[in-house]
Amino acid sequence: MTVGVYGLGRFGRFWAELLAKKFDVVCTNRSPDKPTPAGARRCAPAELSRCDTVFLCTAISSIDAVTRELAPLLSPGTTVIDTCSVKVYPVRLMEKNLPSSIRLIASHPMFGPDSGRDGVESLPMIMWPVRCPGEVFLHWKNVFVSYGLDVVEMSPADHDEEAAFTQGITHLVGRVLKELGLKQSRIGTLGYRKILDVIEQTCNDPMQLFVDLQVHNPYTDRMRADFRSALSDVVRAIEDGKQTYDGPRAD
Amino acid sequence: MTVGVYGLGRFGRFWAELLAKKFDVVCTNRSPDKPTPAGARRCAPAELSRCDTVFLCTAISSIDAVTRELAPLLSPGTTVIDTCSVKVYPVRLMEKNLPSSIRLIASHPMFGPDSGRDGVESLPMIMWPVRCPGEVFLHWKNVFVSYGLDVVEMSPADHDEEAAFTQGITHLVGRVLKELGLKQSRIGTLGYRKILDVIEQTCNDPMQLFVDLQVHNPYTDRMRADFRSALSDVVRAIEDGKQTYDGPRAD
Repeated sequence: MTVGVYGLGRFGRFWAELLAKKFDVVCTNRSPDKPTPAGARRCAPAELSRCDTVFLCTAISSIDAVTRELAPLLSPGTTVIDTCSVKVYPVRLMEKNLPSSIRLIASHPMFGPDSGRDGVESLPMIMWPVRCPGEVFLHWKNVFVSYGLDVVEMSPADHDEEAAFTQGITHLVGRVLKELGLKQSRIGTLGYRKILDVIEQTCNDPMQLFVDLQVHNPYTDRMRADFRSALSDVVRAIEDGKQTYDGPRAD
Repeated sequence: MTVGVYGLGRFGRFWAELLAKKFDVVCTNRSPDKPTPAGARRCAPAELSRCDTVFLCTAISSIDAVTRELAPLLSPGTTVIDTCSVKVYPVRLMEKNLPSSIRLIASHPMFGPDSGRDGVESLPMIMWPVRCPGEVFLHWKNVFVSYGLDVVEMSPADHDEEAAFTQGITHLVGRVLKELGLKQSRIGTLGYRKILDVIEQTCNDPMQLFVDLQVHNPYTDRMRADFRSALSDVVRAIEDGKQTYDGPRAD
């Protein structure tokens, strides 16, 4: 079985190397400047027609263009599996742009080259059979289980709602804290060290991914509104506190 | 040497038990309902006149009333050391309300019954000689060094500015996230687990302490303004991203 990988950014390279441990992997990228992942073979986009399965590892915002490009190239019966960090948006585009003879699975491996550096055992991966026979979905589910992954079946809408209030809020807070230019401090509490960890965990990824995650997840608008509203509530409690104490102030 | 502790809340009890490992400790509290810490002896406020040193372990917002109450009770030459999580505000009140015959040291042990549960070795403690002979300050500094603490000399203003942007921002973020009712999630990323840790580290303390920290630190106004401004910048980048992509939306 030949497996294709389209997109050789940071995640695509990591993903192709992981797949190459069990499959014959060919890979391609729009611009030629990306190195070929270890264990995989470089190909032109047209050669993806020979693959049984093609993984999409491109930016969320490029899924529209990439699926349009692939539509006339892929052979009927090919399974296309996206790996985007949002699900509703790319699923709609795959359904719209790829012919009905193409099977579709949605996936979100919730890890990458940083968190999966020392192995992917027990890390979570979301999967959903968008348009494909049960046995094809089961085959790929079993493949990822065999990697030791914690495979969770979840619909694109459920995924996006839960991701908005877990990954989405984490990245929002991380970016805001990063803007403040916080530094290590000798008087930093244990909680403050966790704050620095959040920045570390969220701001190594490109800004493009952050914006894509916020823009292309339909639930992040509500998450951001809830966050601003919670901030206002907390600030109001502080203002009320100022009124109540009314003692001498430091300044 | 007899050491007094005024205030037997969660921190005062912890502090009295720590001091009782090396000193004869007497302790008092406004309301009689608090239990007496292990190794310490209960006394009436007036008995603090027999102490060489008195630690104030009361709420930040009660320092004004407590110092007024102690002023006529303490013997000349007594050293008063506060333990508040802000420093400019209680230092001004101690200087104003306690007679010049009382020696003053500002301190902030940056830990408590949670973070110091398994020992206080290498935890940070801020100290500053507000109004006292060098040898008295050095004595107490050496006492805390002998407990294994990382004693840092820092002026009240420097402390408050640095604390606003470390402890203050950590608690602000923790309270806002707490308001959102976030839960454990099977699809939570490593970064999200750090977010849950921040809530855990900040929301066990009483709301009163949170409000006091924000109200009585003159630098937290700027910290909160900076935080809101950073949030606006990040939201603006997301709105710009929405304009640029202009592709099909999930909803």
